[in-house]
Amino acid sequence: VGNSVFKVTILGSSSAIPAYGRFPSAQVIQYANSNFLIDCGEGTQIQINRYKIKSSKIRHVFISHLHGDHYFGLIGLITTLNLLGRIEPLEIFSPKALKEIIRVQLDVSNLKLRFPLHFHSLEDNPNPILDTRFMKVYSFPVEHRIACWGFAFIEKEKERRFVKEAGARYGVPVSKIPNIKKGADFVAKDGTIIKNRALTIDPEKSRKYVYITDSRPIKNVPDFIKDANLLYHETTFLKDMNNRAFETFHSTTTQAGEFAKSLHAKSLIIGHFSAKYKSLDALILETKASFPNTELAIEGKSYPVD
Amino acid sequence: VGNSVFKVTILGSSSAIPAYGRFPSAQVIQYANSNFLIDCGEGTQIQINRYKIKSSKIRHVFISHLHGDHYFGLIGLITTLNLLGRIEPLEIFSPKALKEIIRVQLDVSNLKLRFPLHFHSLEDNPNPILDTRFMKVYSFPVEHRIACWGFAFIEKEKERRFVKEAGARYGVPVSKIPNIKKGADFVAKDGTIIKNRALTIDPEKSRKYVYITDSRPIKNVPDFIKDANLLYHETTFLKDMNNRAFETFHSTTTQAGEFAKSLHAKSLIIGHFSAKYKSLDALILETKASFPNTELAIEGKSYPVD
Repeated sequence: VGNSVFKVTILGSSSAIPAYGRFPSAQVIQYANSNFLIDCGEGTQIQINRYKIKSSKIRHVFISHLHGDHYFGLIGLITTLNLLGRIEPLEIFSPKALKEIIRVQLDVSNLKLRFPLHFHSLEDNPNPILDTRFMKVYSFPVEHRIACWGFAFIEKEKERRFVKEAGARYGVPVSKIPNIKKGADFVAKDGTIIKNRALTIDPEKSRKYVYITDSRPIKNVPDFIKDANLLYHETTFLKDMNNRAFETFHSTTTQAGEFAKSLHAKSLIIGHFSAKYKSLDALILETKASFPNTELAIEGKSYPVD
Repeated sequence: VGNSVFKVTILGSSSAIPAYGRFPSAQVIQYANSNFLIDCGEGTQIQINRYKIKSSKIRHVFISHLHGDHYFGLIGLITTLNLLGRIEPLEIFSPKALKEIIRVQLDVSNLKLRFPLHFHSLEDNPNPILDTRFMKVYSFPVEHRIACWGFAFIEKEKERRFVKEAGARYGVPVSKIPNIKKGADFVAKDGTIIKNRALTIDPEKSRKYVYITDSRPIKNVPDFIKDANLLYHETTFLKDMNNRAFETFHSTTTQAGEFAKSLHAKSLIIGHFSAKYKSLDALILETKASFPNTELAIEGKSYPVD
């Protein structure tokens, strides 16, 4: 029994001004058979086409904040999904004002969508904003010029793995396996108690993906983002632009690397690159100096969460 | 004295769903030293970068109608122009509701633009909507599901061309040349009247570009669009989709070709291609059968108006 697919595909890696062919922020999490979209800058639907992401499988969209480079592509994606015949609801997690922005644009075009949009307003809330069969999603405030949220995608604790050979040895009937996977012991016909540990092995470890942009390095770090398998953190600027990063509520390479280290993250993707930088070489080199296991966000590339 | 540059560069050629790498509607007219933008679908700013159009030289934007594939890129372009330091006003000609759509999006991001936006509401109006030193721009209603406008860009009548050699022969002082270019005769020192025709040759002919999308073939054809040097007309569908074109208020290849012929246009560009068509071969072949001097709208390609 292998793990489900859990990977992140970058659709946009640019900060506010798209430059050098780089698109504004957007990425897709593919988990098992469903897609989560995080941020949706202008042109996201074009990138979805280009990189052959199944837009019909996107059921949940998470918008970090209402600067345009993080949401201007959403209305276009919605109208295209409608033209493609979608009927399933789309769940949108975002700051509250987005609902009105989408509504006014649908209204002027006289467009009645064939599928419902469900808006979920992001607020300071320690509970999961989404709880599916396999995954909990949390939001948390980050430090930007306007209200802005990070997201954590955390696999639920998995069931113990039943060892068939052990089951055969102790005569475990199939009907008992579900409970044993949940941790129950097994009582044999002769009354002997077979401890769960003799029948199962530990579950695969739950995996965790954390997304932070746009933000200074955050000071209030929620426990649930610690030990992330994969962290996406913005590095709008090189470290020599430290003052500019502070003033504009962004982060530098060094700050992102130090933050990943403090989080005990296993690996880091950096993105949201300023239009100042044609080459990204210096950005990756500087970040690796603080956190070696770093990769650049490259559009179209997928990064496993493991 | 040559003619000023007058050309159209296609930035988007797709209908509502961007497909096969084709972007939604947008194009730039370059006239002398200024750029006019017509329609501004999602990703227009990305295409402007890609094809090295000077966005700082765009002073006028014309939006045909408020279906998203014709304006979703405008807010992104505006915020990028602001980040690039623009201070010159931007004149926007569009259906009235666009102003509110732009405002609400600027408001939520807390953005005060450093340059003014001047909105001009399109109405049924026989007068030019814009009258510059060199050009008059007219709008006219076309036939779509919601209010939609075509545009005509018509060079002003030019001055007669003064022939230096003739001027020298009759002793014309420099101070008289401006009036002679406007058609005046010249009175020599001895009282002889030198007819204007002896001093000048006919001006270059005024050129005309006409833009029509999205629309059925229009029935009320304004005189000022006749004899266009270049007509852009939508061909969303092949001719076998005649019924679908009628129902959705679009045009077929054959209709566009016939319309160009009835207009006595010199040449035709077809665009706004449905996502049904991966190859555009059948679209160009069918249109050429009615109007041979036709070209496909190819993104990044420029078409002279002459």
